[in-house]
Amino acid sequence: MKDDKKLVEEITSMHEDFAKWYTDVVLKADLVDYSSVGGCIIFRPYGYSIWENIQRELNRRFKETGHENVYMPLFIPESLLQKEKDHVEGFAPEVAWITHGGSEELTERLCVRPTSETLFCDHYSKIIHSYRDLPKLYNQWCSVVRWEKTTRPFLRTREFLWQEGHTAHATAEEAQEETIRMLNIYAEFCENVLAIPVVKGRKTEREKFAGAHATFTIESLMHDGKALQCGTSHNFGDGFAKAFDIQYTDKNNQLQYVHQTSWGVSTRLIGAIIMVHGDDSGLVLPPNAAPIQLVIVPIAQHKPGVLEKAREISGRLSGICRLKLDDSDKMPGWKFSEYEMKGIPLRLEIGPKDIENNQVVLVRRDNRQKEIVSMDDLENAIPRVLADIQKGLLEKARAMLKDKTYSAKTFAEFEKIINETPGFIKAMWCGSSECEETVKEKTGATARCIPFEQEELSQKCFCCGKEARHMVYWGKAY
Amino acid sequence: MKDDKKLVEEITSMHEDFAKWYTDVVLKADLVDYSSVGGCIIFRPYGYSIWENIQRELNRRFKETGHENVYMPLFIPESLLQKEKDHVEGFAPEVAWITHGGSEELTERLCVRPTSETLFCDHYSKIIHSYRDLPKLYNQWCSVVRWEKTTRPFLRTREFLWQEGHTAHATAEEAQEETIRMLNIYAEFCENVLAIPVVKGRKTEREKFAGAHATFTIESLMHDGKALQCGTSHNFGDGFAKAFDIQYTDKNNQLQYVHQTSWGVSTRLIGAIIMVHGDDSGLVLPPNAAPIQLVIVPIAQHKPGVLEKAREISGRLSGICRLKLDDSDKMPGWKFSEYEMKGIPLRLEIGPKDIENNQVVLVRRDNRQKEIVSMDDLENAIPRVLADIQKGLLEKARAMLKDKTYSAKTFAEFEKIINETPGFIKAMWCGSSECEETVKEKTGATARCIPFEQEELSQKCFCCGKEARHMVYWGKAY
Repeated sequence: MKDDKKLVEEITSMHEDFAKWYTDVVLKADLVDYSSVGGCIIFRPYGYSIWENIQRELNRRFKETGHENVYMPLFIPESLLQKEKDHVEGFAPEVAWITHGGSEELTERLCVRPTSETLFCDHYSKIIHSYRDLPKLYNQWCSVVRWEKTTRPFLRTREFLWQEGHTAHATAEEAQEETIRMLNIYAEFCENVLAIPVVKGRKTEREKFAGAHATFTIESLMHDGKALQCGTSHNFGDGFAKAFDIQYTDKNNQLQYVHQTSWGVSTRLIGAIIMVHGDDSGLVLPPNAAPIQLVIVPIAQHKPGVLEKAREISGRLSGICRLKLDDSDKMPGWKFSEYEMKGIPLRLEIGPKDIENNQVVLVRRDNRQKEIVSMDDLENAIPRVLADIQKGLLEKARAMLKDKTYSAKTFAEFEKIINETPGFIKAMWCGSSECEETVKEKTGATARCIPFEQEELSQKCFCCGKEARHMVYWGKAY
Repeated sequence: MKDDKKLVEEITSMHEDFAKWYTDVVLKADLVDYSSVGGCIIFRPYGYSIWENIQRELNRRFKETGHENVYMPLFIPESLLQKEKDHVEGFAPEVAWITHGGSEELTERLCVRPTSETLFCDHYSKIIHSYRDLPKLYNQWCSVVRWEKTTRPFLRTREFLWQEGHTAHATAEEAQEETIRMLNIYAEFCENVLAIPVVKGRKTEREKFAGAHATFTIESLMHDGKALQCGTSHNFGDGFAKAFDIQYTDKNNQLQYVHQTSWGVSTRLIGAIIMVHGDDSGLVLPPNAAPIQLVIVPIAQHKPGVLEKAREISGRLSGICRLKLDDSDKMPGWKFSEYEMKGIPLRLEIGPKDIENNQVVLVRRDNRQKEIVSMDDLENAIPRVLADIQKGLLEKARAMLKDKTYSAKTFAEFEKIINETPGFIKAMWCGSSECEETVKEKTGATARCIPFEQEELSQKCFCCGKEARHMVYWGKAY
């Protein structure tokens, strides 16, 4: 097998150059291609089908919790974007502006949505009248545009695909419940579907969303020790409601402002999958997110009976998992490398000897373990092994997260860790933006979140030595 | 029931003012709302879920025929749009232009995609090398933007949702086969899911897509006698391949240009559903496209046992059809009108007397027929009645299409029909653009298609009297 592997172009080792390894994987696994539009990528079929799986899994969870999908316009008039002061300040510097329709200059510039709070608020102000109209639990799948200077496939692109939930509630309590409900759904989804463990917490004032009262986040850790924000959920209080005049008549016939939330995850998640599970042979996909869970590779397929048997197995298993039978005339070794690169969780090999022995060979992508399984037991064995891979990937990722999570009591300790063994650093913080600024300037790390699970590591801020208010997860981030 | 109906605001009668009736239905049935962005609409949950059903049904058909979904950038650089001469001439006058990213002026203008041929071609030129890479059968679900002057919800909006298939083939024959295969899929989908019969045919040179060798279309007829183009499928030959240099090495090691197709349907289809099936009480949805197929309305729901029974029925039927139980405290008459407006195909009424008699009352939306059904037979009765409604709507639409299809041998006959009884007019045509121009100028009608099913109505062009080459379906169109 070693020699066969050479048939497929090698990729850079992640230990040699992590950024190059990442780019190699996204291109060689046929996830994306670069486009002629600077900073925008093409989602190729294999990359897009991972997104379709993410959409299906999240959509089910959203609908089970009473959310409905809608679609708002792609454009936002400049005057509408400006209605909420903090919001426009946060987004105006990075939006793309439409100035002309055909050959005519527009009377008012339109931006391509960088996020749709203003459009949802505008709509809510028209359709919400009474407490009977609440809550409104809307979600939208779409693409958004932010004019970033430096870009990288999935992680930061000028256009990206995402979902944005926007809800309106009668009370502050309900809005807060919704904010946390959706954060928990994201966390559960990341762990159970993507096999990515996350730290849940609140963003600091400096890091919160433009216009939010509070932003909550799930943060994960990549192979290289850098953090990735996987999803956020914002509580807006009644700030947007006041800016957009979204009022309803309550049961006592009094006018009240609604309380709102928004929450989103994006195609960044595909970047997280790559950097949490991938290895030097390419992508490793958790079965629950994989477009193809099992690939069947016939061995010596020109020999009588092999292809017939492979097709029979393919037919038997097609209702049990997402599978592909590769009966092309490429060599098995080439196929092995190709599907390893693409991160297909499980490979089934079937050759003349296996047929003789009424067996098949299963090879796991995650740990390369081989298992010989009776042909009669496939319907049980395949789901069992896939579930085991899913579980194994989550455990491995949990172990990595634990391994790369450090704690520091002093700035010196903090700096040493960030320079020598990058990862999450737990450290006490006084709550001041000045300390956040200092940390960022001197180390490049930011406050990833104030985790829900607090520990009292000391009584003093590691940066300024004043009284500590929170334990914070710090790290360099994508 | 008559009196109860007044509880819901009446809509304009379609015979009084068809355009006003249409607008009333799209707003009162909660399909869309107007937005602050001129010419763009908001898809509300009910309207969007019809689109989700269309997507699911078409996606299944696309995947069964080997197509894969991808996602291309939202933007097209001006230089890329200009690569195919006819294409840019067709689209440049109606695109929206991005000139600034944040505060910086772009070095090259980008347009928001009006359609994505140029992006797919650019990508294909990079990834197609050998005959082994063919065919490429890609599809994309997205929104596109065309800066229209006059707009109407679903029918013509500046942004609309659609799918666009783009394929590349080794030979002209394969491309032609694909073009017709997708047209047939559209026609089958329209008839079986939307209950809309269509006329299949080829567009004239004047009406074909900018850059296509040939455009094929499915045309349907609305209640008011106007035609609606429901979907198109284009054969590009090797025109785009030559403009974008998409070549492959064939089995004999010779360089060849690929042959391409593209095909699309859009949210216009929702407009077609409204105008083919709707009536003066509002929307009428075919069960196969309806977000909610059955609404359960409890009668005298404060009486003991009624709500319990309604919930029990809802539970029994929830795996059988898409249903909603309305146990709100609104009056039954209000609910009847509301769900008639929303076009829900079937209503199930359950009250104390029904419970006594172990029965329910079913009321069809399409013809208002009532049927009393035994409580024990619901699992059979509901699918039977829904299938019957689906079939009935298609038959009714077929009868309307037949009724409103006329034929004319002379220009005088043609004019009389178009003015007195609008619909499709079958008439012979010489093949010249001049006659098309004359017909359009004098009557407002255009050549909808040269149908596959030809008839020889006479030997002369109805317009100029010269030798006829084709029988054409003419009509005024949306």
